[in-house]
Amino acid sequence: MRENPLHRGGIYTDLYELTMAQGYFLSGKTSERASFDYFFRKNPFGGSYVVFAGLQDLMDVLGDFGFRDEDVDYLKTLGFQDTFLDYLKDFEFKATISGMREGEIVFPLEPILKVQGGLIETQIIETLVLNILNFQSLIATKAARIKQAADGRSVVDFGLRRAQGLGGVFASKAAVIGGLAATSNVFAGYKYGLDVAGTQAHSWIQCFDDELTAFRKFAEYFPDRCILLIDTYDSLKGGLPNVITVAHEMEERGQRLVGIRIDSGDLAYLSKHARTTLDEAGLDYVKIFASNQLDEHLINSLIDQGAPIDAFGVGTNLVTGQDSPALDGVYKLAVHEGAPCLKISENYTKTTLPGAKRVDRYFDDDGMFYADAVSLETEDTPEKICHPFYPGEQSDVAMYRSESLHHVVMEAGRVVGTLTDARESAAYARERLALLPEEHKRFVNPHIFKVGISKKLMDLRTNILQDLKKHYKKG
Amino acid sequence: MRENPLHRGGIYTDLYELTMAQGYFLSGKTSERASFDYFFRKNPFGGSYVVFAGLQDLMDVLGDFGFRDEDVDYLKTLGFQDTFLDYLKDFEFKATISGMREGEIVFPLEPILKVQGGLIETQIIETLVLNILNFQSLIATKAARIKQAADGRSVVDFGLRRAQGLGGVFASKAAVIGGLAATSNVFAGYKYGLDVAGTQAHSWIQCFDDELTAFRKFAEYFPDRCILLIDTYDSLKGGLPNVITVAHEMEERGQRLVGIRIDSGDLAYLSKHARTTLDEAGLDYVKIFASNQLDEHLINSLIDQGAPIDAFGVGTNLVTGQDSPALDGVYKLAVHEGAPCLKISENYTKTTLPGAKRVDRYFDDDGMFYADAVSLETEDTPEKICHPFYPGEQSDVAMYRSESLHHVVMEAGRVVGTLTDARESAAYARERLALLPEEHKRFVNPHIFKVGISKKLMDLRTNILQDLKKHYKKG
Repeated sequence: MRENPLHRGGIYTDLYELTMAQGYFLSGKTSERASFDYFFRKNPFGGSYVVFAGLQDLMDVLGDFGFRDEDVDYLKTLGFQDTFLDYLKDFEFKATISGMREGEIVFPLEPILKVQGGLIETQIIETLVLNILNFQSLIATKAARIKQAADGRSVVDFGLRRAQGLGGVFASKAAVIGGLAATSNVFAGYKYGLDVAGTQAHSWIQCFDDELTAFRKFAEYFPDRCILLIDTYDSLKGGLPNVITVAHEMEERGQRLVGIRIDSGDLAYLSKHARTTLDEAGLDYVKIFASNQLDEHLINSLIDQGAPIDAFGVGTNLVTGQDSPALDGVYKLAVHEGAPCLKISENYTKTTLPGAKRVDRYFDDDGMFYADAVSLETEDTPEKICHPFYPGEQSDVAMYRSESLHHVVMEAGRVVGTLTDARESAAYARERLALLPEEHKRFVNPHIFKVGISKKLMDLRTNILQDLKKHYKKG
Repeated sequence: MRENPLHRGGIYTDLYELTMAQGYFLSGKTSERASFDYFFRKNPFGGSYVVFAGLQDLMDVLGDFGFRDEDVDYLKTLGFQDTFLDYLKDFEFKATISGMREGEIVFPLEPILKVQGGLIETQIIETLVLNILNFQSLIATKAARIKQAADGRSVVDFGLRRAQGLGGVFASKAAVIGGLAATSNVFAGYKYGLDVAGTQAHSWIQCFDDELTAFRKFAEYFPDRCILLIDTYDSLKGGLPNVITVAHEMEERGQRLVGIRIDSGDLAYLSKHARTTLDEAGLDYVKIFASNQLDEHLINSLIDQGAPIDAFGVGTNLVTGQDSPALDGVYKLAVHEGAPCLKISENYTKTTLPGAKRVDRYFDDDGMFYADAVSLETEDTPEKICHPFYPGEQSDVAMYRSESLHHVVMEAGRVVGTLTDARESAAYARERLALLPEEHKRFVNPHIFKVGISKKLMDLRTNILQDLKKHYKKG
């Protein structure tokens, strides 16, 4: 098994998708049409937004979607029927997909992606869509929060060793989309063209007779990117004096030490002490890098304490999305054979929005994001929006400039338009985050961003719900 | 990029591993010898143990480790030197690895794997080792806890859609190693020979004129594995009466409905109501499956409430290890050129254990696990063990039967002995968990399992620490 499992898209799925597909095939529904929405319900990390990521990888995988002979042989062992397996052998993904740009700032309930096509093809990609988009969006969001906390300082991803297996590849890419400068992950650098970075491990120091020799050797071999890890034995009594010796030796050779890295202990205390000591030694240009179980809250706290740290390395808490390790994105049927449909929930706020929909964003007079509207695809940009669950609450949005947020990205199975790569998506996310008012970016109790629905969409949902209730009363 | 990133092992790594490797190469250390330990410090999920998993996949990847031409070309763009890149082109992994069996129950501080060989080869696999073992062990442990909570009931993994990207493949395998019966993940079933399972989604129900027709069609096409999802519109007023109709129709055809699935609402209330209603309809053989954001604590609570649920589907909380989404496993240098070495930490309990080590497990008179001892590889099984940080606390273990836990799995880069596959590792984990006394398996405040170190190992650490302190006093 030397292949990327994502490129076995046909079987990189939950069994029930294929079970249902066989059922649709056998019941003559193969040519029926459907439209599914990808959306999420709850913002992760106690925040108020999500940075949408994963679109480029999803399109790459869908462009190559299908079933190989060995997949079909395997499915036969699971009891699938020959006529259906023959159908899978020739299966081609021909659906049309539209949605948000990668890097867009998105909010609960609004359709981020809309997949329209045959019932079977739109159904069986569900797991793939969710697996890729939920995770990349989660990590891009976490990265955006960490970058915000770092307040202009550089942040690098060091997480591969604690990542959830191969999830680490997506994590590094999504971290860059969310605003990080670089990653330690060489493979992700290779695959996605990301900047890669790193220093050295404690084992480097241990493999020389003493720390000073280890530092000297590193400076000798890597004079342009020499960052020295000071905490192998004793940060202040050992590491720091040795750093100063080596930095001065480098100066004599016309070189400049880039920085030091502190990876344990009290980072605020150690960084302040190190800054003073370095400055006194005439090394005010030597930067201080800090790592060790950092997240947005710790970085925030370090900066509040005036810790003179120039750049941060973040690992575990970034690449796993530690405090909310999954985005709750779902993929729900909205139209079947032209008829809008919904799924009722015991919890009214989990009832889905029927019909093929569009999303518009309104901007206030300062050009900042004001609200989003979800309406029917066939409507114009709404002039009024309703609270999705309290019909009495309405806002007039006619006076605001608006943008339509959905763009066609795939037509009949072929990518159309331009997909952005990691750097471009990162640039777009940065640009859009700047338009999200500060009160939505607070770490504690952020203001909820307004997402309304059109009156027509609300009425459609009400009517379908009433019909269903009548049906069950009769039943 | 159609390849599995893990099989680009040479660059599936943190940049600093390769930076250090070039440094070792340039400083003439290529033929120096080293021994690294893989271990973790903190049990996840508030528990007292970890189920070790990931060994089979790690060996698979290391058996194929190397650098392709395109990897080397890429590394050249990062500034690596030609002589070193030539060395990488011909690089072969020839280290020797010994450690615990996959499925073993392991504890903090003890070396789970020991990697011995050339300095460069043992260093550059660090990220790969940590990435694979940390995650699979994390999820196998979570699965074992969930399986324990289910108290003999079957549990199936439904997590791929919320998994951390491709991490979902490892997650499904590790879940089975930890005790789950099956997975919805078809690719993992194919790759690892796991049982796969699944029912149907709400969209199936929505694609027919009404729920009864949808149920009938599913029963028609899948009579042997028919489990009906009852909550698309109204579980008790709609889903359940329709289930009973279909189950009776199946009986007339000599078939039996397998079960129903409840995926929302109050699972205790709904399952009790459903059980009574099904029993009254003569359908006592119809099983009740429950899913929706379950973990060990919710399953425990449902069983405490007497919920008549026969099997559970778990997703997000399992495959992400939701409450502890990373195992803190590390890979530390223990011997360099025959000399034992350690890394000091500001926190004494994070100082590493020097030297090449062995691990023995002691069994009490009932054959249950009593304690583990970490000692030097050259020692016999210790007769006394010391608390790793309070030298005064010692236990006499001479009277207990013991087993040596380390086995050679790779010799000079080639797999030796037998690696267990997912089913075999699952069987071993089940057998070993049965030997772990109950007080260590409690969900709340579990009793810490005793892991001691030998007097010789303690003295060695003390001596190295004293030498280092003298060095810094002089300095």
